[in-house]
Parts: sequence; structure tokens; C-alpha cells
Amino acid sequence: MTTLSPTPRSTLRRHKERARTDRADLYAVLDAALVCHFGVVVDGAPLVIPTGFGRDGDTLYLHGSTGAASLRAATEAAVCVTVTVLDGVVYSRSVFNHSMNYRSAMVYGTARAVTGEPEKRHGLRVLVEHMAPGAWDYARQPTAKELAKTAVLAVDLAEASVKIRSGPPSDDEHDIALDERWAGVLPLQSGWGAPQPDPSLQSRREPPEHVVRRVAG
Amino acid sequence: MTTLSPTPRSTLRRHKERARTDRADLYAVLDAALVCHFGVVVDGAPLVIPTGFGRDGDTLYLHGSTGAASLRAATEAAVCVTVTVLDGVVYSRSVFNHSMNYRSAMVYGTARAVTGEPEKRHGLRVLVEHMAPGAWDYARQPTAKELAKTAVLAVDLAEASVKIRSGPPSDDEHDIALDERWAGVLPLQSGWGAPQPDPSLQSRREPPEHVVRRVAG
Repeated sequence: MTTLSPTPRSTLRRHKERARTDRADLYAVLDAALVCHFGVVVDGAPLVIPTGFGRDGDTLYLHGSTGAASLRAATEAAVCVTVTVLDGVVYSRSVFNHSMNYRSAMVYGTARAVTGEPEKRHGLRVLVEHMAPGAWDYARQPTAKELAKTAVLAVDLAEASVKIRSGPPSDDEHDIALDERWAGVLPLQSGWGAPQPDPSLQSRREPPEHVVRRVAG
Repeated sequence: MTTLSPTPRSTLRRHKERARTDRADLYAVLDAALVCHFGVVVDGAPLVIPTGFGRDGDTLYLHGSTGAASLRAATEAAVCVTVTVLDGVVYSRSVFNHSMNYRSAMVYGTARAVTGEPEKRHGLRVLVEHMAPGAWDYARQPTAKELAKTAVLAVDLAEASVKIRSGPPSDDEHDIALDERWAGVLPLQSGWGAPQPDPSLQSRREPPEHVVRRVAG
């Protein structure tokens, strides 16, 4: 399945020109962000939790403490996982047409608790490798106790919508013709700073290759 | 009220050392982010929508099209507005202690529809000025028709939690003593690129002062 099969709630009704229906766009947006915002209903009210995540094919992995009430509430329940990358601010000639350039994905589904140890370990690996590529093999592996303290949830990427705004302002023809005001995009850029070694390191103050490689881009 | 009065759901139960209870910290996190993730319950399922916002004192303003179903569902209903600023990736000696440095705020409340024109205009001004400082006075003002097409919601900042992680990894003493692996933080930095003038500008290709000032920091 290379396209996103639309459902009523995953179909954009506003700004349809910003919709993407290619599954590759969904993957690209998810892979470009480090944090997702994970929505769950607790006692009838929404809860939006920022958290790390990872993707393997069409499965999204989330994790947290087994003691977290929000994770327990999400298990086998309806969730919405949203990922947003902000690319810039769109300065228009009119206040009304000010906007932002962004890439966002909304995933709708049911969170499944990952209970078997092989998949749990796999999900955590996917998650850690998304946050810090190369770290899983480099760092000390999880103990049985650490694994037991960690809850892993899986969300299927079956139902999702992708929305992308890029490019210059979309001003009204009248405002453009007047040519009275500047308009354009102020791009937002992000990048890695220099690695900051843990002050408690006794030796090995030089970052390992997977960290150096990331900074180099 | 200079502190955040805790309620059961706004009280952190996990990683309590990351909690901030000063109202100034809530303001600082909200003011540092351009996008919020707005959670609402639609047909029993959570919906997490990325959107711009603005803050005036203890009121958060959100906006959208009057035609948006999510905004209609949010009106006079329970919402959760979460803002997250990612500051870096925490590389630990163990896989388990990998983490992120971040500042986040979760606001719980009921979204009130802003109906009177003076407050609607004020809310939009606050919102546009948060996204693009200086733009409201520079750009063409909204027409009555544009105002009618825009729905503005207000959320009171009465109930909120703030969570901040900063600083080096928190590894186990045993792992630190072993001194077998590097650990540290890779800071994530963001900044503005050069303004990109709208190709449809006929003259006035030099950005105005409020844009120039933002890029200069």
C-alpha cells in the first residue's frame, strides 16, 4: 500500500492543497521529527503528551514508565499521534494570510501494548535509534529490571493524514497588485551544536563516532 | 497568583524533579514556542492538532476557520494545549537512560469561543504578534469578512503543568564508575535563515524592520 487510504477523519476538508496522500510523505514527516504529541482521552478529557517515538515500517512505537497513568489509559484505546516540523513563518501582505510553513502528520489508531520481550526490545531499539542513531549498539543494554519498568506501545500507521505548507505567501490578488508591503518567508533552521561531555566522565571525553557523524550531518 | 495551583492531573507523578510550579516558567515555555498541539475529543477519540497560538497574561488564544469541525468540537469543551521546545538529545551510558532535554507545558481547560469583535480582534493580534512580532501593525488589517471567517478560542491558564529536563545524563552510579562509555548532551539549536522575498513582489524586496530585527535576534 503506497498511498494513505482516506477515512472521513483523515481527509482534509480545509486547505486541501496542503494534503499529501503518498505514504512516503508520511514516513518522511515522521522520520524528520524527534518528538511526537500523543493524544489520549482520560476521564473524558484529552491529554496531549510530548514524547519520543520510533517507526519501523508501518508501526509507530512509543514508550514510557509502566507506572504512567496516561500510558495505561492509552492501552487498547483510541489515540492520535501528531508530529510537526516547523519550517518557517510566512509574512503576508495582509494579517489574515500570515501563516507558517510546516510538515505535519496525524496518525489515528488504537495503541497496542507490546508485551512479548522480543518485540518490546525491538520497539525500544527502534525508538532509541530514532532519537540517537547508533546509540543502541554502543550503550549498555537494558537489564530485565529496566525492561520490566518500561511500557512499550505500538500504533499501526493504517489511518493517517499528512499536511504540508511550503513556499511563498498566498496573498489576495488585490493586495499583490497594490505592491504596498513586503511579503516573504522567514525560514526556521535547526542544527546540532557541539557535543557537551558529561562532567562525570573520568576519561573518554571524545564523543563516539555515532555522535560525531550526527553533528557532521 | 505567581505559582501554578496544582490539581491531580497537573501534578507530575513521574520525574518530579522535572516539575516547575512557578507561573513565570509556564509563561517562558509558552513564549518560547511557535506551535502548540491542541487536543480535543471528537466522537470519543482524541484529536491532536498543531496550530499557532498567542498568550496575553493568563489567556491563551487559538484560532482557525469557522468551518473547522475540530474547532467547533472544542468550543465549550475540555481541551489540552501542549507546547514543547526540544533542547537536545541526552546520550547516556545505558540505553535505558537515554533521554531528551526539553521544556514543555500542558494546559488543561475549557475552550471559550471569543465572539465579541473587540476581543476577537485582540486575540488575533496577540496570535499574529506571537508568530510574527511587528506584523500586525505593518500588514493590512482584517476585513469584516475575514474576521467572520475566523474562529478564535480562548483558554484560561488556570490549570497547567510545566516540565523541564536540562543538563547532563542521569546514569546509574555503577555505569559511571565503570567509565567504559562516552555520555553527554547533543544540543539542538534553531535560528532564522535569510528572509526569502515573495517572487510576486514588484518592488519593496527589502524586508521591513520587524523582519530584519527578528533575524538579527
